Amino acid sequence: MVIGTILESFIMHNNPILVEITRGSAVESVHRGTIIICNARGDIIFSAGDEKRDIFPRSAVKIFQALPSVMAGAPQKYGFDSPAMALMVASHNGEQVHTHKAWEMLTQMGLTENHLQCGAHNPYDAESLWEMGRDKATKSNLHNNCSGKHCGMLALTKLKGWDLAHYHHIDHPLQLAIKNTMQDLCETTCPVHGVDGCSVPTWQINMRSLAMGFAKIAVRKDSSQSMNDAMTLITESAMQNPYFVAGKNRHCTKIMSEFPMQAFVKVGAEGVYCAALPQLGLGIVCKCDDGNERAANMMLNIALVKAGLIGADKQANYLTTPMHNWNGIHVGGIRAVAV
Amino acid sequence: MVIGTILESFIMHNNPILVEITRGSAVESVHRGTIIICNARGDIIFSAGDEKRDIFPRSAVKIFQALPSVMAGAPQKYGFDSPAMALMVASHNGEQVHTHKAWEMLTQMGLTENHLQCGAHNPYDAESLWEMGRDKATKSNLHNNCSGKHCGMLALTKLKGWDLAHYHHIDHPLQLAIKNTMQDLCETTCPVHGVDGCSVPTWQINMRSLAMGFAKIAVRKDSSQSMNDAMTLITESAMQNPYFVAGKNRHCTKIMSEFPMQAFVKVGAEGVYCAALPQLGLGIVCKCDDGNERAANMMLNIALVKAGLIGADKQANYLTTPMHNWNGIHVGGIRAVAV
Repeated sequence: MVIGTILESFIMHNNPILVEITRGSAVESVHRGTIIICNARGDIIFSAGDEKRDIFPRSAVKIFQALPSVMAGAPQKYGFDSPAMALMVASHNGEQVHTHKAWEMLTQMGLTENHLQCGAHNPYDAESLWEMGRDKATKSNLHNNCSGKHCGMLALTKLKGWDLAHYHHIDHPLQLAIKNTMQDLCETTCPVHGVDGCSVPTWQINMRSLAMGFAKIAVRKDSSQSMNDAMTLITESAMQNPYFVAGKNRHCTKIMSEFPMQAFVKVGAEGVYCAALPQLGLGIVCKCDDGNERAANMMLNIALVKAGLIGADKQANYLTTPMHNWNGIHVGGIRAVAV
Repeated sequence: MVIGTILESFIMHNNPILVEITRGSAVESVHRGTIIICNARGDIIFSAGDEKRDIFPRSAVKIFQALPSVMAGAPQKYGFDSPAMALMVASHNGEQVHTHKAWEMLTQMGLTENHLQCGAHNPYDAESLWEMGRDKATKSNLHNNCSGKHCGMLALTKLKGWDLAHYHHIDHPLQLAIKNTMQDLCETTCPVHGVDGCSVPTWQINMRSLAMGFAKIAVRKDSSQSMNDAMTLITESAMQNPYFVAGKNRHCTKIMSEFPMQAFVKVGAEGVYCAALPQLGLGIVCKCDDGNERAANMMLNIALVKAGLIGADKQANYLTTPMHNWNGIHVGGIRAVAV
C-alpha cells in the first residue's frame, strides 16, 4: 500500500523522457513531456505521459483566438488576404514581411500600431534586429510575435463596435467569445486562467480535450457551417502561407512547407504544440515539461510519426536533428526516445 | 526485490523537481536537476538528486582552461590586466566592453582575431546586435562568448612555442595540460569527451569530484604554490570584475556583484553552474536535467542558500523571481522548490 502510493506518486510526476540531447557519445540533457493524439470523437490514438494533464496552451491555440473574428466575417469586411489570415494565427519572427503585413492590416481597419495592446519586443530573428540597427529603427508593437493575432482581435472588436482600448481584458466580449469557442469545441470548461506574454488571457485546458478539439478542426465537422467554413479558411490560409505563421528557421514553417496542406501545426510558449491533420482526421497536443522549444519540436515530430504523417522512409531525418557548433563541427544532436 | 529494482530505477532517472515556473495560480513548467555542495575533502555538505552523476561541465570550468596559462605566467608576460583575466574565464555577452578587451589581449600578444579558433556568433546582448547593425559591423570571433578564454589559451600556446593553429585540438599539449589540471584537482579521471560550442574538448566529469575541485579552489590549498597563486589570481580577478565574466542582465555578474569577493560563480551551457565560496570553503556544482539556464540560475541560488551564503533575510528575493510580460504585467515567476 505504501509502496503503491510511492510508485503512483513517481508515475504521476514522472512523464517519460521523450527527447535526449547528445554530445559526442554521451547524453547531455533530457526532456520529459506528454504527447496525445486523438480523433474527433476524443478517442486516444496514441499517448505518452500523463493523459489527464491540464496545460496553458498559450500561442498554440491562436486559431481559437481567430475563429470568432473569422466566423463574423471580419477579414472580408476589412479586406484581409490569405497571408494576413495566416498572420492572425502566427507567432512570427518580426521579419519585415511580418511587420509590413501587420501594418497593412491595421491600415485596412483605419487603425495604427498604437491600437495593438500586445506590447513591443525585439524581433526573434537576429538578422531583422541587425537590420533595425542599420535603419536606426526601434522595436514596436508590430515586431511582437503576436501582432497579427492582435490585428485579428481588433478586427472583430471594431466590427462589433466594442471597446477598442480594452479588447485584451478578460471580461471584454471578445475574450469571452474566444473562451466560449475553445470550451465548446473542446467540450470542456476552462476555469483557470493566466495572463499571456501579449497581455490577453490564456486558459488552462485538459490536453485530451484540446487534442479532440484539434481533431475536429482537422475534419472540419462542428455543429455550424459558419464554424466549419472559418476553420477551413484559417487552416488553409496558414498551410498556404507557412512563412507568415513563423518565419526563417522556424519549425512550424518547416513542417507546413514540407507537408503541404497536410498539417496545420502551431507552437506555443513553454514547449506546447497543437496540430490538426486534415487527411488523417487527427488532432495532436504536445507539452514539454520544462517548456523547451527544441524538445517540443522533436515531440511534434514524434507525434507526426505516430500519427502516420511522416512515413517510414523519412522518419530518420525527423527523429534526429544533428547539432553543429560555430565552426560547423558536428558536436551532437537532438534525438527522439522510442515510445 | 522487483519493487526495489523498479524504485531504484525511478530514483536514478528521476532527479527531483527543483524549480517551478508559475503562471497565475498554476504551475506551467518544471525543471529537475542535481545540486552538490562539497568541502575540500570531498564531504558532501548538501545534495539533491543523483550524486553519482557525470556531466559535461562546459563553460562552467573555464577556470581549469585558464589555470595552465596563469600558472605559467602568460598573463604577466603579455601584460594582461585584471579585467583581461576575468575575460579568460568569461562567457561574455559580446558587448563592446568585452570585444574590445579581447581585441586588446590579442594585440598585446601580437596576434589578431583570425588566430581565435572559437568561431563567430552574434552577441548574446540584443542591444549590442542592434549597435552592430547601426555601425554596419558583422559578427566576428571577438563576439564569441568564449573569445577571452581563447585569448588565454593562445597566450600559453605562444609562450610555450606550441603550434598556434591547432591549440583547440584534443591532442594539443594545451588541451592535455587543461585535462590534467582538472583531473588532478578533482582527483578523478575523465575518459569521455565531447566537442564544445567553441571547438575545444569538454571532458565529462563526476559531479561530486568537480564540487570538491571547486572547494579546493575556494580554500586555495592545493599541492603547489604556483597552482594556489593562479587560483587566487583568477578568482579574485573575476570577483573584482564581474561585468567582464558575463555582462548585462546575466546571473554570474549579478551574484558576484551582490556578494562581492564572497563567491566565484560560473555558468556553463546546458544548465550547469560551478561555484567556489572562499570564506565558506565550499564548492558547488549544479546541473539542470533539461539544460535550461533560467532554472540553473535558480538552482545556483538554492545552493547558495544551502551553503549559507544567502542569509535568511535575503532568501525570499533569491528563491522567487517574478516574471513580467511585454507590458510590464506580472504574469508569474520562477520559484525554488523546497529541498
